[in-house]
Amino acid sequence: MSQEQRQALDTLFRTGPLQVDGDPREQREVFTRMLTSRPLPDDVSLTDGTLGGVPVLEITVDGVTPRGTLLWLHGGFYVFGSPRTSAGLASDVARRTGMRVLSVDYRLAPEHPYPAALEDALAAYRAVAESSAASAASPASAVSGGGELVVVGESAGGGLAAALLVAARDAGLPLPAAAVLFSPYADLTLSGSSMTGKTAVDPSFTPSAVRVRARDYVGGADAADPLISPVFAELRGLPPLLIQAGSHELLLDDAVRLAARAAGDDVDVTLDVTAGVPHLFQAFAALLDEGDAALRRVTAFVADVTGSVPR
Amino acid sequence: MSQEQRQALDTLFRTGPLQVDGDPREQREVFTRMLTSRPLPDDVSLTDGTLGGVPVLEITVDGVTPRGTLLWLHGGFYVFGSPRTSAGLASDVARRTGMRVLSVDYRLAPEHPYPAALEDALAAYRAVAESSAASAASPASAVSGGGELVVVGESAGGGLAAALLVAARDAGLPLPAAAVLFSPYADLTLSGSSMTGKTAVDPSFTPSAVRVRARDYVGGADAADPLISPVFAELRGLPPLLIQAGSHELLLDDAVRLAARAAGDDVDVTLDVTAGVPHLFQAFAALLDEGDAALRRVTAFVADVTGSVPR
Repeated sequence: MSQEQRQALDTLFRTGPLQVDGDPREQREVFTRMLTSRPLPDDVSLTDGTLGGVPVLEITVDGVTPRGTLLWLHGGFYVFGSPRTSAGLASDVARRTGMRVLSVDYRLAPEHPYPAALEDALAAYRAVAESSAASAASPASAVSGGGELVVVGESAGGGLAAALLVAARDAGLPLPAAAVLFSPYADLTLSGSSMTGKTAVDPSFTPSAVRVRARDYVGGADAADPLISPVFAELRGLPPLLIQAGSHELLLDDAVRLAARAAGDDVDVTLDVTAGVPHLFQAFAALLDEGDAALRRVTAFVADVTGSVPR
Repeated sequence: MSQEQRQALDTLFRTGPLQVDGDPREQREVFTRMLTSRPLPDDVSLTDGTLGGVPVLEITVDGVTPRGTLLWLHGGFYVFGSPRTSAGLASDVARRTGMRVLSVDYRLAPEHPYPAALEDALAAYRAVAESSAASAASPASAVSGGGELVVVGESAGGGLAAALLVAARDAGLPLPAAAVLFSPYADLTLSGSSMTGKTAVDPSFTPSAVRVRARDYVGGADAADPLISPVFAELRGLPPLLIQAGSHELLLDDAVRLAARAAGDDVDVTLDVTAGVPHLFQAFAALLDEGDAALRRVTAFVADVTGSVPR
């Protein structure tokens, strides 16, 4: 039905200026320009803050009293991106779910390889989780905004979100109500079958470019470390997961294997694959029917796990 | 939250009278007694009929004007069961989705091994698909009931539904709007990792018993034939699939691999795994919160693919 839309998006990605395997500093600027070229809606407010000593961007929609918090982890292969580059998608999800976003500005590789991003994510998570717990005991607290907590990650932030849940579980922290992972980058050994099987149809990335960026984050560690590549993690005890991906992406098998692992480890999990669309197609929900449909399913999932009625 | 409900269901399955690997004729009777012991709701009507020369049971809910058809394929390892044994779940889904059910009374093994069940399913499907197409051209037709067509299968019927879609695609037939597969039995080579990894937690089946029944259906054919074990089939071109399973079942990996295959083959697919529940937990929706929640997601999916508003 949206064959034309999908074709246009494919062309957009194929002709984009980003050189994924280029110089990190230069390509960070390209990435930021690409992803901030469209202005945010007028009613979206961005507020800088810190959480557990880590810089965060609070994203809210004017007129919406948030009924909970989405702790957001942006994408960019752990090398590019910031809370600002994913504010378009994050504010869209905030609006649809009636939640506010706290987006973590974690440190980037190669300057700060693993475990810097995970340490930052965990510090921010610890602060918001403990503040949520405090707020649950004292609902009038204005510190956290109160309400339910859902972790959301996109691409590298999706892999980071899965690693964060594992680290939070192992640290004995209270876990969030659920997590939503958009096209998670969850195997930095790049062993997924789609890494070779989807090269012709992924308009955004090549395996060799991904390999360059994976080295930046892995640094001197082992790429198969479960906290770097959570497809290899023991996931038992994690909260419900919604994992979305497009079938036209090198990272498809990261999503599939993370879901398979979660299911095997007795975690409630939904793997939701949209055919014929690229990495992070949800960011184009305004232009692509499939993106809007996928975000409607995210909204229903968040409503379900947080016990509210879908909008 | 429903820990107690889940424990009770587990005990119910573990202490049930069915001997999966017993004499087919005797165990058919046990299976039928078990699954028909609870009366159907008073407002459910069962009507015998035929479709493409194959016996079918029409299941409707009084007062509901069906807006489409669920072509239903019951479970029972291709050896046990009938439309009547799955009428409880089928009528529940009919009620929730506002559809009528046409449940196919396909021939059973070992008397009728592969491809008998698939031939019957395909003959019935062809009749209803062509009648739906005719009815779409002439909406007043009373023959088919008109409206959208969704294929639903449970357990062996779930594997059969996947094989049916492949066969229908290869025969050039119009495809249904979607398919819903409950805990599909989709690998009769029994090579899934859950076939060994979930033996302690599956309360219903043992690998050795499943193996006995698999031989009955495979007969002289190859168990790895994609039309017997659709986890090995090329699935390209299939309509959207919703695949549900519990994490406490030997067949979990059948669901996972079928979904993985569909995603790789550019099919819209949702894999929806509920933690800690057994095979076909949805049939216990009245007793188990997780079953009700899973059927609500089925209802939303059917509404979505057939273009109606969820109830």
